Amino acid sequence: MNADQNPARNASATAADAPGAPVIHAIIPAGGAGTRLWPLSRKGRPKFLLDLTGAGRSLLQGTVARLAPLAATTTVVTGVAHVAAVARQLPDLPEENLLAEPAPRDSMAAIGLAAAVIARRHGREAIVGSFAADHLVADAAAFRNAVRQAAALAAADWLVTIGIEATGPSTAFGYIHAGAALDVPGAPDGRRVLGFTEKPDAATAAAYLAAGDYRWNAGMFVVRAGVLLDHLAALRPALAAGIDEIAAAWDAPERDSVMARVWPALEAIAIDHAIAEPVAAAGGVATVPGDMGWDDVGGFDTLAELIAPCQAGPAAGAAVLGEADVEAVDAAGALVASTSGRKVVLLGTPGVVVVDTPDALLVTTPERAQDVKGVVDRLKAEGRDALL
Amino acid sequence: MNADQNPARNASATAADAPGAPVIHAIIPAGGAGTRLWPLSRKGRPKFLLDLTGAGRSLLQGTVARLAPLAATTTVVTGVAHVAAVARQLPDLPEENLLAEPAPRDSMAAIGLAAAVIARRHGREAIVGSFAADHLVADAAAFRNAVRQAAALAAADWLVTIGIEATGPSTAFGYIHAGAALDVPGAPDGRRVLGFTEKPDAATAAAYLAAGDYRWNAGMFVVRAGVLLDHLAALRPALAAGIDEIAAAWDAPERDSVMARVWPALEAIAIDHAIAEPVAAAGGVATVPGDMGWDDVGGFDTLAELIAPCQAGPAAGAAVLGEADVEAVDAAGALVASTSGRKVVLLGTPGVVVVDTPDALLVTTPERAQDVKGVVDRLKAEGRDALL
Repeated sequence: MNADQNPARNASATAADAPGAPVIHAIIPAGGAGTRLWPLSRKGRPKFLLDLTGAGRSLLQGTVARLAPLAATTTVVTGVAHVAAVARQLPDLPEENLLAEPAPRDSMAAIGLAAAVIARRHGREAIVGSFAADHLVADAAAFRNAVRQAAALAAADWLVTIGIEATGPSTAFGYIHAGAALDVPGAPDGRRVLGFTEKPDAATAAAYLAAGDYRWNAGMFVVRAGVLLDHLAALRPALAAGIDEIAAAWDAPERDSVMARVWPALEAIAIDHAIAEPVAAAGGVATVPGDMGWDDVGGFDTLAELIAPCQAGPAAGAAVLGEADVEAVDAAGALVASTSGRKVVLLGTPGVVVVDTPDALLVTTPERAQDVKGVVDRLKAEGRDALL
Repeated sequence: MNADQNPARNASATAADAPGAPVIHAIIPAGGAGTRLWPLSRKGRPKFLLDLTGAGRSLLQGTVARLAPLAATTTVVTGVAHVAAVARQLPDLPEENLLAEPAPRDSMAAIGLAAAVIARRHGREAIVGSFAADHLVADAAAFRNAVRQAAALAAADWLVTIGIEATGPSTAFGYIHAGAALDVPGAPDGRRVLGFTEKPDAATAAAYLAAGDYRWNAGMFVVRAGVLLDHLAALRPALAAGIDEIAAAWDAPERDSVMARVWPALEAIAIDHAIAEPVAAAGGVATVPGDMGWDDVGGFDTLAELIAPCQAGPAAGAAVLGEADVEAVDAAGALVASTSGRKVVLLGTPGVVVVDTPDALLVTTPERAQDVKGVVDRLKAEGRDALL
């Protein structure tokens, strides 16, 4: 990777140009294989490490670049299996800001440990913002505006979540129920959160959309490190104590031994269940709406919409991911993702999804994109580990 | 290849069991890449060398086996590029019966030279039968019956063609127009041929089918070697002289030098135009109907009909060629031909055709199968020779 392709460095340059100072310490939990994107995504090559839109950078690199103008520091939390790949993709990330989980313990332990380390380094007043490594945001300015408002609310000791403007009655996301407006300087759009919902059924989702007070929960949290840790200590004292013990040893020689001893015993629970839901019930959560072209790239159906079809050339009419050697004849709306280097020809197959990798080929349609998970489940059940 | 898989040897065993003696000297022109079956078929791996139905033998091996009960000798004519592959697939074929064309000169030169060599070895009274190397016949007994009747007509000095019972108004074949019945012993179904037609348009094909006197021309000719050579001498004297010069040197040390000098100058013309059509016009061609489950495996549409769908297992409902590792979910009527060794998953794509080879992937439908030729033409125009 040469300097021009280094997203962290480019992002830093952008940060210098952007108005305003850093307002958060960014935490990026980088986990989740993205099984619905098999065979493109694999256990050893998870979704966040992939360039899924032909942008020339992975979703993780895009996330770091997007946060750079806002973040005084960036901390990535990932599984030990992916530490090397993350380090290579983010050459400017300080090694001490790359937290390796010996085993997955869900988002509360990951975000909690990062927040605890940041609190010890930068003080409990420091505002942290946690953002998934494998989402896309089309409108970076709208994203920055939402994060800055969220930071203003966090400075007033709110636990803040950014609520994504629902563009349809999706059943794939949980929803945030927004209540009354809050009067906090620097956060004109801030509202109290009445509660979080699980993924709804279609009728409920339609009702949420009609009501207008519901937003998609994209797992974006902004909060003072000390506020987060205090909530955690009150709600999950054992987990909080374990995290505190690791954080105390993090910048000391004992880090590895303490991590190895304490981490495996930590409770595995999502931050939503551990903190966001009970704190919302107690009236301590605020939200900022974000209409930012957000996408979690949940499957090939989404991907087909994200990649613009070729306007000319042999693959005209089809969306082609990467440098694939594709000829598409009467295949409008088709999606081709090919990493095998082979010649791929579509002939009279509009809308087909073809995912071509060196050891596995998937041919499907956007309508069936969510069923790809079942294929992976079956491969797992059959013990086809090399394909996972 | 072990002895049990040797089709020529198995075929000989069948010949011993079959009623009746050999009635022809078989000639098998093995040419034609089969571009409509790209990327399965290639210039260097033409259709006749492929096992296209999972029968465990190539179309060429199947053709030799089918002719074995009928043939006193078998002669294969192929391009120099394919001599080694043909020799390996047919280990029992005598080397002197494998005729290598230094350059393609169409079917008249190929069949004419084989007939001339057979005439010199076995006499001009010998009956030759010419059959393409890359066709399928489901009903071997019906085929043998038709060839035996054709041989009886040939013994009465007719040029005989076997006419395939038309099962639909195909526009992919030329037609044979059958006239009055002939009264030749051993050929109860023999009829005079009124003429040959080019591939018709759809309306004409429908009219042929309704009339009932038209049969598909599969290029199966049975005739005394001397009769064929006499027709050739009368109709194409220069070509006949060239062929005679090569044949005279065939079983002598001068074979290669004479072949190298004379062959390239021979006229390139199909046997249909050179002999069959003018002789039919003069009343010298007879036909025997054959309702034998014939197929020229002209494309993936045909292939999809020839291969029975899997009844059980992960690929149930789809037709799978070879040992491919396929999972098919809601993909009834799909065809998968995979030689890449990869896992292939079809998910919600009924009727799709997926042809998966190490360096090229084709995704199409039976409706577009005939347009595959255009893909190959474009690759050729682009100079993508490695893919041809």
